[in-house]
Amino acid sequence: MTETDNDNDQDNSPTPLQQVTFLLRKYKLVEGLVNLQDAPDESLVHSAVQKQNLSELQHFLDQLHPADIAVILEALPMEDRLLIWSMVKTDRDGEVLLETSDAVRETLITDMGNHELVAATEYLDADEIADLAPDLPQEVMDDVFRSLPVEEREQLRAAMSYPEDSVGALMDFDVITIREDVRMEVVLRYLRMLEEMPDHTDQLFVVDRNEQLKGVLLINRLLVSDPDTLVADVMTNEMIKLHPDDVAQQAANAFERYDLVSASVVDDNDKLLGRVTVNTVIDFIRDKAENDALNLAGLSEEEDLFAPVLKSVQNRWVWLAVNLVTAFIASRVIGLFEDSIEKLVALAALMPIIAGIGGNSGNQTITMIVRALALDQINTSSAWKLITKEVGVSIVNGLLWGTIVGLFTFAIYQNAELGLVMTLALVLNLLLAALLGVLIPLTLRKFGRDPAIGSSVMITAVTDSGGFFIFLGLATVFLL
Amino acid sequence: MTETDNDNDQDNSPTPLQQVTFLLRKYKLVEGLVNLQDAPDESLVHSAVQKQNLSELQHFLDQLHPADIAVILEALPMEDRLLIWSMVKTDRDGEVLLETSDAVRETLITDMGNHELVAATEYLDADEIADLAPDLPQEVMDDVFRSLPVEEREQLRAAMSYPEDSVGALMDFDVITIREDVRMEVVLRYLRMLEEMPDHTDQLFVVDRNEQLKGVLLINRLLVSDPDTLVADVMTNEMIKLHPDDVAQQAANAFERYDLVSASVVDDNDKLLGRVTVNTVIDFIRDKAENDALNLAGLSEEEDLFAPVLKSVQNRWVWLAVNLVTAFIASRVIGLFEDSIEKLVALAALMPIIAGIGGNSGNQTITMIVRALALDQINTSSAWKLITKEVGVSIVNGLLWGTIVGLFTFAIYQNAELGLVMTLALVLNLLLAALLGVLIPLTLRKFGRDPAIGSSVMITAVTDSGGFFIFLGLATVFLL
Repeated sequence: MTETDNDNDQDNSPTPLQQVTFLLRKYKLVEGLVNLQDAPDESLVHSAVQKQNLSELQHFLDQLHPADIAVILEALPMEDRLLIWSMVKTDRDGEVLLETSDAVRETLITDMGNHELVAATEYLDADEIADLAPDLPQEVMDDVFRSLPVEEREQLRAAMSYPEDSVGALMDFDVITIREDVRMEVVLRYLRMLEEMPDHTDQLFVVDRNEQLKGVLLINRLLVSDPDTLVADVMTNEMIKLHPDDVAQQAANAFERYDLVSASVVDDNDKLLGRVTVNTVIDFIRDKAENDALNLAGLSEEEDLFAPVLKSVQNRWVWLAVNLVTAFIASRVIGLFEDSIEKLVALAALMPIIAGIGGNSGNQTITMIVRALALDQINTSSAWKLITKEVGVSIVNGLLWGTIVGLFTFAIYQNAELGLVMTLALVLNLLLAALLGVLIPLTLRKFGRDPAIGSSVMITAVTDSGGFFIFLGLATVFLL
Repeated sequence: MTETDNDNDQDNSPTPLQQVTFLLRKYKLVEGLVNLQDAPDESLVHSAVQKQNLSELQHFLDQLHPADIAVILEALPMEDRLLIWSMVKTDRDGEVLLETSDAVRETLITDMGNHELVAATEYLDADEIADLAPDLPQEVMDDVFRSLPVEEREQLRAAMSYPEDSVGALMDFDVITIREDVRMEVVLRYLRMLEEMPDHTDQLFVVDRNEQLKGVLLINRLLVSDPDTLVADVMTNEMIKLHPDDVAQQAANAFERYDLVSASVVDDNDKLLGRVTVNTVIDFIRDKAENDALNLAGLSEEEDLFAPVLKSVQNRWVWLAVNLVTAFIASRVIGLFEDSIEKLVALAALMPIIAGIGGNSGNQTITMIVRALALDQINTSSAWKLITKEVGVSIVNGLLWGTIVGLFTFAIYQNAELGLVMTLALVLNLLLAALLGVLIPLTLRKFGRDPAIGSSVMITAVTDSGGFFIFLGLATVFLL
């Protein structure tokens, strides 16, 4: 895998993306010439060069890992992307589609005919097809089902039946099962009869004749054990048993805490259904982290870098709309005090300070809490401790920054009362931020919503409107 | 591992944390009674109950996985945390410390004597000790070095010499090496002589007598190959070779793309130094994602949930200070237009709308770009395409939301010109947001800084001050 070496050397050697971009430019350059030329002989020469460039590009793509091709496709503008995609061999289409982001996968699939799509799935396992299923046209899925052998068809049905973000959705069916009453030596001979073992096979699953999971035989133990010992004596029954309906996040936590490579998935009667492997878990963790980041920034879902403008507008409008509403509210809050502002126009210049710092510190609190919730670190008893702590922090910060702000105000407007109002307003707004910074995510969680989504927008809304109201209110009372 | 089952069943059974909290309360309840009681016989009874509760708690802790103990410690208020910590057996202290977050680890270490600390390290590998080293007192590290056998001492020195976030920092030394001129059967016998193999051993490393890495023998291939074949015939030399100075992120990308369980680490002469395993990579990915989120929210580092107030203030002050400065600037921008606001006070109420929506849409753009940069998807040629796309999006959004905002303004203030100024200002501020949303992260990257850190703060600063300036400026020109 030469590309993997590039990937890991410090940028002194070109990345696969850079190489493809180079070859592409070379190709398109000549293409341009060919079209310009009219003299047949000339163009013949060019098209010869052309053929050679194309095969060079083709050859380079063929020796790339599907994951690298996926990265390249995601990084290329639409036209180039489709050109490269058309050059990927059918038997690798499926793997590449699995590796691309949903947004980019869509652009690739819409470019393929149904036959191509069916062909692409032929090289995938049932659980992999299930991952693509949501993006595939119904007719294609029908053809795929028909083309599958009975067993795989059942697996595909099962895999598609589990909700996203459930363990079932992460599960694959590549399990090697053995019986507990055989000797190591027999196991070794049995394995030798397979031409190859599934990736990430770090354990064999010991089942009885009803497919019930009795224990696992770790490959590491198998290799160091005496060939004459029985599986029953070497296997362990201290193992992770996931259930297909478990939340995927729980599986991810288990893999992270207990350093797993694979884990069994069983039904309620301990019947072995399949396994989850660490590579799937890594992808899950990455996606989760990414989506949180995107949601926080107000993007509904990951967006194709080169998505057409209107598609991007669609992806972003929801949060902008929410933001618009909160901004209108804040604006009306200020509207309430237009008389005061008219009397003392400095208020207009100062109010964003109160709102801004409040929002920032509220987001600090909320991030802490959201993280703690994700790690299950908060129970009712600790919730109170947290509120008191955050309130404490906000008071200290309020006095600290409030003083600075107060002095700044005095320095500019030579108005001591105005300075004091600033200080007081900042303290109060930070208090508000702290309280709601704890309460908003806890409440979202209580009502079964994901605390990560939207809580940042909410806290900012509160600290804006709240900050304006507190500051302008105090000013109206004490200064006018 | 009963606790892992709890961990994966849907909340119907208590989590380890809940169980510990319960046992703790029981214990402290009676403790209270004991102290209240004066009658010796009474208190005798109680302290008997007491002993039993304590041993119950002790027993429960002993059968927990270190990772679970770590989670529990992080979730407990200081007092309880230290009580539980004191009950963890010395031979597990090290493992638990490795699993806790830096902030919590600090609180635990400061509670331990140097002897305890040295003792705790005795059960750890060199690379694990290196992970703890930054948090350990110098005297402790000196003792540890003295206590180590020569080879491990060298390994520890090596491990400590690599910068954080380098591959070297993720590396461990548990490699099994073989020669290429032996037969499978010999390898199997060799493995059988070890009582146990290192975790995550999915491949054996084939080296020559100079420790130079020739290739890897995958365990999966070993198991399916004929015992008489030579290692040379079964091993592959298509393998990932990491270098200790590579950026850790590159290793993480490689593991994610190529679904690795372990990868070799070699020096510039291909001499095998050690390996990186997937569990370390998962921890790295998690930490990275978390820190990005924390930085985005303006927290310098992950914070102990129950950190004393002043410690939290320290952890948060930097970004608040930055925010204060930007807020002051915005405030002065408004100050420039106080006359205009005095003449038309509605401006004060409307200006936050322009700033707010600009900030939101700027953050959307910046998040897209930061993500694309992290995935190496942006090169100079695509940078321009991105700018034009984002500009396109901002124009569409500007006209869309600008119209709404304009109508809203007209509805409230019955002032058509004011409405038009709002529309125009919003379009311009969104344009500004789009341009800088692309340029800020690209520039940070160009100067070798992490684009994730601070770019959100910067864009908000720009869209605030910029928004105020554009809006108030236009208003002054056209309305007054």
